[in-house]
Amino acid sequence: MNTQKLNQWIEKELVENKTIQKKVAPAPATNKTSAPKKTIPAKSNSSKTPSRRFSDHNPNRGRKTAYKRHAFHPTTRLKPGNHGTIRVIPMGGLEAIGQNMTFIEWENDIIVIDTGILFATHEEPGVNGIVPDIEYLKKNKHRIKGVIYTHGHLDHIGGVPYILPQLGFPPIFTTRLTQAMITGMAEEYGFADKLRFTSVDPKSKMRMGRFEVEFFHINHSIPECLGVVVNTPYGAIVTTVDFKFDYKPADGHMTDFAHIAHFGHKGVALHLCDSTNATIPGFAQSESNIIEPITKILKYTPGRIILTLFGSNMSRASRIIELAEKLGRTVYLSGRSLEKNVGYARKFNYLKCKDKTLKRLKPGVKMGPPDKTLIMCTGGQGEEFAALSRMARGEHKQVILKPEDTIVFSSSKIPGNELQIFNLMNKLVDKGVNLIEGKDESVHASGHGNQEDIKLMASLLDPKYFVPIHGDQYLRHANKTMISEGLDFPEDHVLMMEHGKGIVLNQHGAKIMSDKERVPTKKAYYEDMVRLREETIEERKNLGKKGIIIVDVENNKGTIKKINIRTHGFFLLGTDEKAFSPLKKELTDTFNRTYDPARSEKALEETLKKTAQNYLWQKYKKEPTIEVVL
Amino acid sequence: MNTQKLNQWIEKELVENKTIQKKVAPAPATNKTSAPKKTIPAKSNSSKTPSRRFSDHNPNRGRKTAYKRHAFHPTTRLKPGNHGTIRVIPMGGLEAIGQNMTFIEWENDIIVIDTGILFATHEEPGVNGIVPDIEYLKKNKHRIKGVIYTHGHLDHIGGVPYILPQLGFPPIFTTRLTQAMITGMAEEYGFADKLRFTSVDPKSKMRMGRFEVEFFHINHSIPECLGVVVNTPYGAIVTTVDFKFDYKPADGHMTDFAHIAHFGHKGVALHLCDSTNATIPGFAQSESNIIEPITKILKYTPGRIILTLFGSNMSRASRIIELAEKLGRTVYLSGRSLEKNVGYARKFNYLKCKDKTLKRLKPGVKMGPPDKTLIMCTGGQGEEFAALSRMARGEHKQVILKPEDTIVFSSSKIPGNELQIFNLMNKLVDKGVNLIEGKDESVHASGHGNQEDIKLMASLLDPKYFVPIHGDQYLRHANKTMISEGLDFPEDHVLMMEHGKGIVLNQHGAKIMSDKERVPTKKAYYEDMVRLREETIEERKNLGKKGIIIVDVENNKGTIKKINIRTHGFFLLGTDEKAFSPLKKELTDTFNRTYDPARSEKALEETLKKTAQNYLWQKYKKEPTIEVVL
Repeated sequence: MNTQKLNQWIEKELVENKTIQKKVAPAPATNKTSAPKKTIPAKSNSSKTPSRRFSDHNPNRGRKTAYKRHAFHPTTRLKPGNHGTIRVIPMGGLEAIGQNMTFIEWENDIIVIDTGILFATHEEPGVNGIVPDIEYLKKNKHRIKGVIYTHGHLDHIGGVPYILPQLGFPPIFTTRLTQAMITGMAEEYGFADKLRFTSVDPKSKMRMGRFEVEFFHINHSIPECLGVVVNTPYGAIVTTVDFKFDYKPADGHMTDFAHIAHFGHKGVALHLCDSTNATIPGFAQSESNIIEPITKILKYTPGRIILTLFGSNMSRASRIIELAEKLGRTVYLSGRSLEKNVGYARKFNYLKCKDKTLKRLKPGVKMGPPDKTLIMCTGGQGEEFAALSRMARGEHKQVILKPEDTIVFSSSKIPGNELQIFNLMNKLVDKGVNLIEGKDESVHASGHGNQEDIKLMASLLDPKYFVPIHGDQYLRHANKTMISEGLDFPEDHVLMMEHGKGIVLNQHGAKIMSDKERVPTKKAYYEDMVRLREETIEERKNLGKKGIIIVDVENNKGTIKKINIRTHGFFLLGTDEKAFSPLKKELTDTFNRTYDPARSEKALEETLKKTAQNYLWQKYKKEPTIEVVL
Repeated sequence: MNTQKLNQWIEKELVENKTIQKKVAPAPATNKTSAPKKTIPAKSNSSKTPSRRFSDHNPNRGRKTAYKRHAFHPTTRLKPGNHGTIRVIPMGGLEAIGQNMTFIEWENDIIVIDTGILFATHEEPGVNGIVPDIEYLKKNKHRIKGVIYTHGHLDHIGGVPYILPQLGFPPIFTTRLTQAMITGMAEEYGFADKLRFTSVDPKSKMRMGRFEVEFFHINHSIPECLGVVVNTPYGAIVTTVDFKFDYKPADGHMTDFAHIAHFGHKGVALHLCDSTNATIPGFAQSESNIIEPITKILKYTPGRIILTLFGSNMSRASRIIELAEKLGRTVYLSGRSLEKNVGYARKFNYLKCKDKTLKRLKPGVKMGPPDKTLIMCTGGQGEEFAALSRMARGEHKQVILKPEDTIVFSSSKIPGNELQIFNLMNKLVDKGVNLIEGKDESVHASGHGNQEDIKLMASLLDPKYFVPIHGDQYLRHANKTMISEGLDFPEDHVLMMEHGKGIVLNQHGAKIMSDKERVPTKKAYYEDMVRLREETIEERKNLGKKGIIIVDVENNKGTIKKINIRTHGFFLLGTDEKAFSPLKKELTDTFNRTYDPARSEKALEETLKKTAQNYLWQKYKKEPTIEVVL
């Protein structure tokens, strides 16, 4: 595999110099062989002759960072042999993008990585959030030695209010920024005082029960994103969660190639790898690629600019706010998640701007001239009550759209939201505004790596087994095919997990658990904090498609006085009495035929319901929900 | 504009030779200037030296065609001056792709072009079809001189069963194939005997009241697709409906450039132009581009092939069936629309194959060996009950999927269907099959023209006014911008219509109607053949998201015996009696406080409903549908 030479070099560096942290990480793949020889002292940055090394003229290089390069710890090395079975069990993240949660079990100890949420689509009407059913972990909560959070996105931390209370608030290991975000969430639900945090950063090495856990920094659309390395006697279990390689990232923190390759060199048993963009060829676009077009828009647009982006895209929001300040625009924020994330970015020094640059777009706020205004908002997914949708409908009190306005969609379309996004765009276009989206200009870059990023990461880590995660079956299989073909990775060493059916790792290697060993789990649907029965969702789907008929039978001891039929959402007119008279006749017949004072009311209701069902199916081929009230 | 030279040439040809039909149409744009000089006699086809003209070695050139080139008719030329106002009024097709219907009104006469359907999405639950509300045309049906159908796709003819009976079955003008398709539809609804057809083809010139109408052939994914030219004293009104330029179309009928340009030369007032792919740069892919990869798949795939495509894609289905026959595969058809369309293709000689090549995939059918089998089916949009979805769920009796099977998606994703398509693909991938879709291989080409096709068509027709149709607001505005920038077309000569608010054309030119002149119309939603009230759809949406609570108050002359609360799809458990006891108490209080034998039962029910509404909102912030039954 490609990483071998790199590993050799790293080992040499580690052994001979022991000062890798003063050196610059080698450039990736292309000039890998020559890079190690040409290390340049750190001072060359200020030398008069311009350096040809990318890292020396990277404007972000000098930024104050939360992370410093560090000396490596030695890994726990148990003697070879049998040290028991280790099980890696995914609770989500394999059937859609979201609900990311995996636990690792070794003898009596369990650690959990992430407790993310899956956002509901129109196929789960009324649902606020989907998390895994964690019956097994609840029963074994005393064995949980820690929960590790890789970064602050909701598909990784959003399950906090649902999951942590069920687990009895185990110790949490994560970075300061992610801690703050989790705390903010816990405060809303009133259990912030129950959380016990241990701060980690990429140089940390933590013991959680039997487990020894290390971390490394990865680039994503939010700062302080961690790869997790769980050391085991059979090699490390590494999860690279959401990552891309970005040589010019928005948060200024470079990929630490040497650090990642170091783990690869030590020996990785399993690499759990993101599949989100596994169907997209090439390398992911750098965030810096989109900053240039956005700068141009901010600079040359004569009127007001309304820019929408994912509230979770903390890094981009921070960069754009700093840009706006430089170009003399005041930024008006709208959208709860965005406001919160911008707050965290300022608190943790990932955004440096004056107080007066930032305002909330709240009722009564006075806005400056259009060419000094940037409204930054969420709602680019067409959410019905988001500020942007209200602007489009003309219902927003502060912002009345004019043809001079420019609206920038710095976001992609999440599958399932296409229709409502098109509806939003149609309404905006009807207002005559100038609309810029990813298709027109390069104003959005994904935070996830494409095929080449995945190949590079897998090459750096050089795992024995490759495990596609974070994506539905289609994307994960695409990842499998891609890595097998693109890296000549042996196909039988690509392991495809299912929810609850993970990997067994022991001295003989790794394999997928048998169906017998499967840990039962399913999706848990929540509306507010109430867990919905699956039947409730089915009922909703039926009601939503077919409507309901309520048959009110007024009767007195076996004599029908009157039958009232009320409908909601049924295809025949609810007020059309005539349409229902044959049904009423049939119901009356059934009632008279089957009434028996000895029978329960419920049984009679059931009989009448069957009559109505048969009638409606035979006459109209319809199956509405039917409720009979005696 | 670019077409001037071409027009000059065509005029010269027409005047000097009067035999344009024997000549080959000039090659498009690139070698436009030299082409006219190099006309080659038709016989050169059989000459020994290979021709460098594309048309001479076009394998489809020799196909028997339904269309022959023809001499042009002279157009009616009224003297310049005032001949009354002509109104072009769209009834649909401007807010989504579908529901295409436009009528043209000149003094007392009306002609209608297409009566298409719009397919419902998950935002219109339970709806089978959406057509325009045509109150105005119903009132004026005696003035309708004809309905023209441009081609047999459902977004153009699907409204037949809803619209034609309302209009009293006016005379229909269309091609033989489209007639057959309309007749087939009318037979299902029992009014085939009421239809009066007049056959047209690209050489026809028809009189419909005051209107003189001509046609030209355009390429699309179904044969016999017509552009419509309505001659008026102010220039022609031309609609190019669904078209792309395809130099090697699947049905073998070439674009008749000279014919189209001829209308441009005579003078076009309005060009109503498709916007479906107005955001996609370049020329549309030729259908022949995808036949090659599909041939390879049919040839080299060792196992069974299951290919899904739009049932409406008659041309592609025909070509693939012919290919399969050549390569020794029997074709098993599944999907009602596909079976019907393949039937029409055979009947009208657009598909030539042996009887034994084609079989229906019906229960009991015996299939040959896998490598001699091609299953061709619909269901690529993830429709729940389509054969492909049933195969994916393992519910299809004839086809049990195996890892050796190859599934080809020769279709695109219709916006709004993404999620269910992904669900389908995930299930297929889970079965281990080999899945090929448009992204992997070039196995789908759109039937609609891209930006360059649109520019070429507009250049050939050289209209005074350009009118983007067929697409939502976003796509139509994209078309406007594209044509203004790409052709230097004056922006104020691009007219943006709305449903019911069309164009007024008179001797002074064309302009959009005022709001006062607007013809009232809205969407008419149908479930089966019953028109749904808009409230019904709203009720369904509410039920589907929030559920329903049925409060059954058993009472006897002012005394409550018992309150039963039943729920469907409500977020609290229907069986959780305790959760509802505070609500029952409140309802009892209200009942006791407001009961009055003099009041109607309905009024009391309303009062109790309000109590329940307030309680649920205040306690849970929920707004389910509530029904109170006394």
